[in-house]
Amino acid sequence: MKIVTISREFGSGGRELGKRLADALGVPCYDQQIIEMISQKKNLDRDYVAHVSEKDVRMFYPSTIGKHIIAPNYIGSQSVQIMAEQKKLIEELAAQGDCVIVGRCADLILKKYEPLNIFVYADQASKVARCLERSDEAEKLSPDQLVRKMKEIDKSRASYRAMLADSRWGSKENYHLCINTSRKEIKALIPGLTAYVGGWFSAK
Amino acid sequence: MKIVTISREFGSGGRELGKRLADALGVPCYDQQIIEMISQKKNLDRDYVAHVSEKDVRMFYPSTIGKHIIAPNYIGSQSVQIMAEQKKLIEELAAQGDCVIVGRCADLILKKYEPLNIFVYADQASKVARCLERSDEAEKLSPDQLVRKMKEIDKSRASYRAMLADSRWGSKENYHLCINTSRKEIKALIPGLTAYVGGWFSAK
Repeated sequence: MKIVTISREFGSGGRELGKRLADALGVPCYDQQIIEMISQKKNLDRDYVAHVSEKDVRMFYPSTIGKHIIAPNYIGSQSVQIMAEQKKLIEELAAQGDCVIVGRCADLILKKYEPLNIFVYADQASKVARCLERSDEAEKLSPDQLVRKMKEIDKSRASYRAMLADSRWGSKENYHLCINTSRKEIKALIPGLTAYVGGWFSAK
Repeated sequence: MKIVTISREFGSGGRELGKRLADALGVPCYDQQIIEMISQKKNLDRDYVAHVSEKDVRMFYPSTIGKHIIAPNYIGSQSVQIMAEQKKLIEELAAQGDCVIVGRCADLILKKYEPLNIFVYADQASKVARCLERSDEAEKLSPDQLVRKMKEIDKSRASYRAMLADSRWGSKENYHLCINTSRKEIKALIPGLTAYVGGWFSAK
């Protein structure tokens, strides 16, 4: 089984890289579809699922009241259900065959398949430029607001990972390949990356 | 100009990766040759030059006497000369054309050429296994001694980098591609890596 997981900093182009890599490998790429599937199955709002499915459940309640840390059983039960559903779905998708999965801690969830785990990152200027290029939403924010937003999202991703494992999000030790996309067009990196992925899976 | 620099954890196979990549690209690989050239030019012992050329010059004198930090002008002048010579030589070699350079902070020294900077790393078990495979010296050490030795060498490399720049050795932000060689045969990674390097240099 050849499974590639893509973890990425917000704005680094990781999603595009995952999609293009999957196309080049001729395998499905699971990203937004996971959200669609859960929202349909659970009859929940798509945006709500998107929000919960990659963010720290702690965002939905204050983690402390006064000086008291809230016990884990206070975690909103619906968000936990969505995340459990997501985990199950990722396992089901992986069981169907080779694929690329973007985000959602698939590297941890699919450990038994020994996936090739890629982390995609970039310098701040490149990430801001990429966000502005891709999203009308980003254009409404000031550069400072955008940077703050990007950092928030990355922090949520890191927190989500921290819930599932002790290993740190973005720490190169936890990935097989870390790709810096600063000032580079993703498209041009794909043929080489595809060859690298092929070699990695066939390597002793 | 296409220059690839390889920084690496001791035992990660970075040297082998650099050599094989250079062969695949059809360009020279500079590694030990740099030491040979300096020892010949300066009429110095090869091992001595090897020791100085990649290690923190601070290893050659106590950095503090009592509580007083020794001023930089106390740094052994010969080691500084060797390191200056090394820097000059790396610049001369790069000026001659495309190449792969292993270690010696070439990524910093050759910044103006906008090299592709690769960092090679691996988990501890893989590094120990690789050291034992490659070196009779390593076999004479206990596993604990070997791990200590490996960490010492990496620390020296980090210190050498710290002398030249504020950016941290091994921190993925400072490299374009970070390759984890754990439990993988270097040879099998080369065709893909070669393709990736080609794509990176031609990417907009």
